Amino acid sequence: MTSQAAQVKELTAPVADGLARMKETIAHELREQSPAVREMVEHVGRFQGKQLRAALVLLSGEATGNTTDEHASIAAVVEMIHLATLVHDDVLDGAKVRRRVACVNHRWDNQTAVLLGDFLYARAFAVSTDLSSRLCSRVLSEATRRICVGEIEQAAGRYDFEATQERYEWVAGAKTATLYAAACELGARYPGGRDELGAKMRQFGWDLGLAFQIIDDCLDLTSSEAEAGKSVGTDVEDGKVTLPVLWAYRHASEAERAAIRDLYTTPGLSERVARLRRACRLDAGVEFARQRADSLIAAALASVRELPSSPARRSLENIASFVLARSF
Amino acid sequence: MTSQAAQVKELTAPVADGLARMKETIAHELREQSPAVREMVEHVGRFQGKQLRAALVLLSGEATGNTTDEHASIAAVVEMIHLATLVHDDVLDGAKVRRRVACVNHRWDNQTAVLLGDFLYARAFAVSTDLSSRLCSRVLSEATRRICVGEIEQAAGRYDFEATQERYEWVAGAKTATLYAAACELGARYPGGRDELGAKMRQFGWDLGLAFQIIDDCLDLTSSEAEAGKSVGTDVEDGKVTLPVLWAYRHASEAERAAIRDLYTTPGLSERVARLRRACRLDAGVEFARQRADSLIAAALASVRELPSSPARRSLENIASFVLARSF
Repeated sequence: MTSQAAQVKELTAPVADGLARMKETIAHELREQSPAVREMVEHVGRFQGKQLRAALVLLSGEATGNTTDEHASIAAVVEMIHLATLVHDDVLDGAKVRRRVACVNHRWDNQTAVLLGDFLYARAFAVSTDLSSRLCSRVLSEATRRICVGEIEQAAGRYDFEATQERYEWVAGAKTATLYAAACELGARYPGGRDELGAKMRQFGWDLGLAFQIIDDCLDLTSSEAEAGKSVGTDVEDGKVTLPVLWAYRHASEAERAAIRDLYTTPGLSERVARLRRACRLDAGVEFARQRADSLIAAALASVRELPSSPARRSLENIASFVLARSF
Repeated sequence: MTSQAAQVKELTAPVADGLARMKETIAHELREQSPAVREMVEHVGRFQGKQLRAALVLLSGEATGNTTDEHASIAAVVEMIHLATLVHDDVLDGAKVRRRVACVNHRWDNQTAVLLGDFLYARAFAVSTDLSSRLCSRVLSEATRRICVGEIEQAAGRYDFEATQERYEWVAGAKTATLYAAACELGARYPGGRDELGAKMRQFGWDLGLAFQIIDDCLDLTSSEAEAGKSVGTDVEDGKVTLPVLWAYRHASEAERAAIRDLYTTPGLSERVARLRRACRLDAGVEFARQRADSLIAAALASVRELPSSPARRSLENIASFVLARSF
């Protein structure tokens, strides 16, 4: 186990049992006769993510004194939806490596990745439909809609160097924070009727998720592929103008702006990112973005401050700090 | 209106009101703030298909004396799932034209088509979740799973000229008949508890859908793009060995087999299909496949024979004949 994996395991220790049941549920629900599907499901199983979203369902339940027998299944649904978005994201990004494993679109092809993602969505909704309350289906179908709209708006806004921070946060929030928010809300509120606590935990998840995305956008510019375990510099390649770049662009001279635009449109990825950082005050943009992530994490911590002290609450707080500190 | 559209309208006349409500529901449920999403939804709205699957929900309800206020919403969900599969299919096939309208992947790009399909799935499941019985969500999430598995198995079996007819029908059934079967079952059975009638109508839909796919596979070889209103010859281009080709291959000489394999792998689409038909007994294969579709339609008609006589039952019978006779 890498030291990072060990760190995540420690962070989620209070819900280790629930996470184990979550994994069993996923393995059971994705079992298929079709040899082709079986091979692919095994393959994506190796992505073995941080499973933070699943852990957030369980931890939000524990921390708010709201645990049911169905929380592990909700965590499984959230994780399957996340996996589906990853598989489809990789088609979108043309990525080749995720968590040191070849992406489905790269190992097979785009059409297979699209179908596997659809399969994962279908299984997620089937499991959700069989839960006793339909709150899970409601929250997660709405979350899925919002993720798609965020991604579509992101694609529509490529190479827009003059977008506002508000617009960036709307898109980054929609595509990433949505599922964090849904996970935390469901953990605290499922099967329903705990609206105020649900709203508070939803806000915790949103702030956490938005900070996560901002840090991700910083890492895409600053880390090496070996550190990240996935392709880096893809945002520049795809024309995604993230918060660090927006900030740098806004504070740049005309010559620097031309250089930034040039870097986004000239082939030769890795050199480009290095040049971008040197020539265009990018490190200052990264610094600004990290400060914004800082204040989002402070807000997230404030949201859980009034919960009774417990190992689960401490885990939520530690996850918030971890999101800020991670370098992968 | 084309004569074909007029024909379909006449076929579905007994449920014209329900279809109008279905369309309103879809328009309402796909309304979005996002300008990018709005533009795309408008675009795919122009695909304006035959809406046979939606009509089957309503007609199966009427014909079995099982109509509820929610049937129009179920029809909308079925149609949205169908639309999602079309948008994703077009990514898979690299198609350029559907119903004389540019495909989403061609008008925008693959990533946009993937996201729009996901958006449509998400909205479909959200509408389904809000229905009074969860039967619709159960049947349709299972149908979606099966469609994906069928498509994945189809991709895994490309260029397999020695596949059995059974294997072909399993794949064609999974990817196409599944949604017809689900539509008819839900129409007859929703909100639940009419299991025998549901099973009978499910079988009707399955036979109808499989016949539809077989005819589609024949038309992909025999019709012109102008007639079909969509790209033709794509099965050959994609390495999909359909029933007419399987039959031709099985009955071909070694030299003819080599010619068929060659035609599947040599560039130059339209000439290839013409050559394929001349050189490789393809017309005989098409004839065999049409006979198989014939007997499926006979079985479908037998499934509804015992229903009380009604305009809806007559429509179901006419749709079955229409599927066999269509040339587009």
